Amino acid sequence: MKEEIEKVSPKEIEKRSFEIITQELEEQGIVLTGIEAPVIKRCIHTSADFDYAKNLLFSERAVEKALQALREGACIVTDTQMAYSGINKKRLSEYGGEVYCFMSDEDVAEKAIREKTTRAAASMEKACLLDKELIFAIGNAPTALIRLCELIREGRISPRLVIAVPVGFVNVISSKEMVLTLESVPYIISQGRKGGSNIAACICNALIYQL
Amino acid sequence: MKEEIEKVSPKEIEKRSFEIITQELEEQGIVLTGIEAPVIKRCIHTSADFDYAKNLLFSERAVEKALQALREGACIVTDTQMAYSGINKKRLSEYGGEVYCFMSDEDVAEKAIREKTTRAAASMEKACLLDKELIFAIGNAPTALIRLCELIREGRISPRLVIAVPVGFVNVISSKEMVLTLESVPYIISQGRKGGSNIAACICNALIYQL
Repeated sequence: MKEEIEKVSPKEIEKRSFEIITQELEEQGIVLTGIEAPVIKRCIHTSADFDYAKNLLFSERAVEKALQALREGACIVTDTQMAYSGINKKRLSEYGGEVYCFMSDEDVAEKAIREKTTRAAASMEKACLLDKELIFAIGNAPTALIRLCELIREGRISPRLVIAVPVGFVNVISSKEMVLTLESVPYIISQGRKGGSNIAACICNALIYQL
Repeated sequence: MKEEIEKVSPKEIEKRSFEIITQELEEQGIVLTGIEAPVIKRCIHTSADFDYAKNLLFSERAVEKALQALREGACIVTDTQMAYSGINKKRLSEYGGEVYCFMSDEDVAEKAIREKTTRAAASMEKACLLDKELIFAIGNAPTALIRLCELIREGRISPRLVIAVPVGFVNVISSKEMVLTLESVPYIISQGRKGGSNIAACICNALIYQL
């Protein structure tokens, strides 16, 4: 995989990267079209992991619905400070949206201890108190995703999109399968164990950059 | 890959995850031992990508040297706000270390424009002004890693460790190969295209958690 250093201007690097991704996908017999393609390609761009060409699952018209929500000023709630840092807040703010992560909040930590749950789960309950249209981007904690699914079933919150991409080995797959049982909530899921806060952030950015 | 939700307390989840990783590596005929093993396993834990069992390259006694540096209060410089967010700054501070990311600094942005380079490269030059023992964790920008290698060759900086894990498709592999040409600088490299700010942060944490 030896390569020479190419003279590519910084602004050209991303464009070139997506061209390489598109070309190598085609060499694998994968031609991505439609409004989901930029999301899938950005996940590959973020991870250099072509598994994301096959493991991302979109509910019907999930991207269209997400873009509409973002145009209407929807905000994003995430379960990690890393994803919070990675989401393009400046671009999102042009449409009125903000990004929230409550993981480090003192009241969330206290609630988690009091209720013998995780801060991730407690942070989802805090999100229910926001009087805003919300997109959830869960990149780390299955407990956050499981609690979010419960809150949706209880009718306490109705997200415009759930990005369900926790990563790992314990309760991750089952937490994603809970999302599949939700009715009338659009979702983007990374099937299997893979995902992460970097993937959660890059899916948000792939949506924002399509606005 | 259907799984039931296991009743595992939050503090047990990481322990269980590492047990699963160890077991599945053994099923693949891979038995990791030594001081590098926790670093490799945490990269798999962070990404659910077993490629990290094979693509991480450690210079001789890199982990021992890194732990010594951290015990002596070495600071960490990274090229993304995401990696900055992901590194356990509280645990690092117990040994006197801090984490720096200069990517969003105004003077770095101005320097990049003035010198027609990237903010990532300019942020490496700013790091040279720090009067501290430094570990670099490069998870995104080949231009940062390339400039860092040049600064080391010029004798302007002598890091205690270079974590070279940029991700992507343009200049990534060649930037990592530059690190291999450095003499007397310990390194941890993710060979090939893979890596990322999440991997950069988790390698830092894997080191910090061994202190």
